[in-house]
Amino acid sequence: MLARELAAEYPTIRGDTNALEAARLLESQRLPGLVVVADDGKPLTVLPAYHVARFVVPVYIREDPALARVVDEAHADHLFDFLASKRVNDLLVADRSESLVVQADETMIEIAELMERERSPLVAVVDEHGLLLGAVTLFELLGAALPVS
Amino acid sequence: MLARELAAEYPTIRGDTNALEAARLLESQRLPGLVVVADDGKPLTVLPAYHVARFVVPVYIREDPALARVVDEAHADHLFDFLASKRVNDLLVADRSESLVVQADETMIEIAELMERERSPLVAVVDEHGLLLGAVTLFELLGAALPVS
Repeated sequence: MLARELAAEYPTIRGDTNALEAARLLESQRLPGLVVVADDGKPLTVLPAYHVARFVVPVYIREDPALARVVDEAHADHLFDFLASKRVNDLLVADRSESLVVQADETMIEIAELMERERSPLVAVVDEHGLLLGAVTLFELLGAALPVS
Repeated sequence: MLARELAAEYPTIRGDTNALEAARLLESQRLPGLVVVADDGKPLTVLPAYHVARFVVPVYIREDPALARVVDEAHADHLFDFLASKRVNDLLVADRSESLVVQADETMIEIAELMERERSPLVAVVDEHGLLLGAVTLFELLGAALPVS
């Protein structure tokens, strides 16, 4: 089974979308990640859901995780407020660009290999012009591949 | 907000569960990961969903990802059959043990930091005796933390 057959419609967001809106989309639909598209609709990258957690952790805690222990709880509870001042572009991991976008003729096993290697339960699928055909989640991959019980 | 307040009931599986059954559980409930418990109910570890993809990729492809391109498609389509011969224990990543299990008094920010560092949208929460209180997904974390719109 090829990527084009596995690809299903999936919500997309643009890089200039408010980060808070993106987080709400993720949470309300329990999405495994976000597909970020350019103005022309071509997918730029995929942001696995756990990376959203990255941006609620202040830089000084990322440099010294032991500090997470002593951060004021009330501060932590309101930390997500700061997302309102950010855009999706600010959340993107610089080195991940395009690595989670696959071609229509890639096989199921190539997608599985990519998911494992890049630790992402989500990839975007494009046609030969780079236009978005849809996305494949690990759930669709398993659903298509698991033997019928 | 502390881990004990965020922890919600979550399906658990045992290490000796058939891996195919575990994959079906993951897929049918669209879970972000699996909480693996010992015979006494204490959580051993958490397996993020994308790691299930890891075990449908043959070893020789993991060593040379370029080979994924040339693997016979029919073979790939039936690859998941092999899960039926495995148990969850066979799927566990050796170095991950217990790293995704948090104490009841850990803060939301500690959980977010752990999720980002370990690239997991799921952690298990235990009491002082190591007994499972529940699990926290990224969705619950966001749901609790996002400002009410």
